[in-house]
Amino acid sequence: MSPELRPATRRPRGPRPGGSDTRAAILAAAREEFATRGYDGATIRGIAAGADVDPALVHHYFGSKEKLFAAALELPFNPGEIFARVLVGGIDGVGERLLRAVFAAWKEVGARAAAMAVLRTATSSDQGAAMLREFLERNILQRIAAELTPDRARLRAGLVASQMAGLLMARYVIRLPALATATDEEIIAAVAPNLQRYLTGDIAGTE
Amino acid sequence: MSPELRPATRRPRGPRPGGSDTRAAILAAAREEFATRGYDGATIRGIAAGADVDPALVHHYFGSKEKLFAAALELPFNPGEIFARVLVGGIDGVGERLLRAVFAAWKEVGARAAAMAVLRTATSSDQGAAMLREFLERNILQRIAAELTPDRARLRAGLVASQMAGLLMARYVIRLPALATATDEEIIAAVAPNLQRYLTGDIAGTE
Repeated sequence: MSPELRPATRRPRGPRPGGSDTRAAILAAAREEFATRGYDGATIRGIAAGADVDPALVHHYFGSKEKLFAAALELPFNPGEIFARVLVGGIDGVGERLLRAVFAAWKEVGARAAAMAVLRTATSSDQGAAMLREFLERNILQRIAAELTPDRARLRAGLVASQMAGLLMARYVIRLPALATATDEEIIAAVAPNLQRYLTGDIAGTE
Repeated sequence: MSPELRPATRRPRGPRPGGSDTRAAILAAAREEFATRGYDGATIRGIAAGADVDPALVHHYFGSKEKLFAAALELPFNPGEIFARVLVGGIDGVGERLLRAVFAAWKEVGARAAAMAVLRTATSSDQGAAMLREFLERNILQRIAAELTPDRARLRAGLVASQMAGLLMARYVIRLPALATATDEEIIAAVAPNLQRYLTGDIAGTE
């Protein structure tokens, strides 16, 4: 199907250009472009071509490559939302439920390529690191901290993030054999109590 | 100083080409090249130029770009050696001593650029991930596991690596504010007991 036919045939009465499906199409194209080419290699023009829209529309929606990247960083599954969901059952046992939810989400969407792209960008420059930092702060850490008692809530959230990030990287990205071959239950038995301690335990060494 | 003059003026009676200083010069040039250009962009020719040697000498010492990379991955500080040192005091308190040693080494050498380069390479391709995996297995995890009782030693070592990697990434690479602004003592009080549990505690959930 040629690009000029597609809008008419696919969305005859839709709100394009300007609807939420256009925005979603741009984000999907941006994720593919960033994953394939990395942050520096990705272009607004290429993303626009992937979404089958005019580059001006990408600028209209997202303003800049940086802002588009931040939006695209919202992974297929959102760790902050996962955390909010697992908190419904109360703070007890959150460590275990968090691991189960993240393992399930990870397998479902095949998130390794997205995680590698995020890490590659974050380690390519100070700007890339800053973008990931802002994403984590805004979308994950603030949500976790909001659910905790005020005592060192930000530090606790950061510690949970450090263990989760290291675990996902070691198990799924680097694929360390001992972690890649361990069962989910083995990992959960080992890691959940440590996460729970970060969330609700004594982390000041005063007990 | 021109390249053709340098060997004669700098090492009039040294063992070049063929001594350990040649090897060290190639490794230093390789680290710079891999950090600047990434694994795919780095070339044996460029590394040889940086070390002021013939490319054939690089092949002679390291055989291939892959092998040179593995050698170059031996960071300014070697986590496996650090772990061996902190174990001298016995397994009790290793979590805390490991954190203190790694924090000190990290600050001393300014390892952020090296860590970013390693992560960038590891997330650039399956080959990059495999190279980091092999490095971690051979240089760090096997050393840690060798010091532990045989019960789940490899899994315990992998769990320690996951927490240390996630902590260093979150605190020094991504620089999450809550972790970047916390003092070493705050981090140690929070993280050391979790590392210690991975090393010597009940990680099977049977207690």
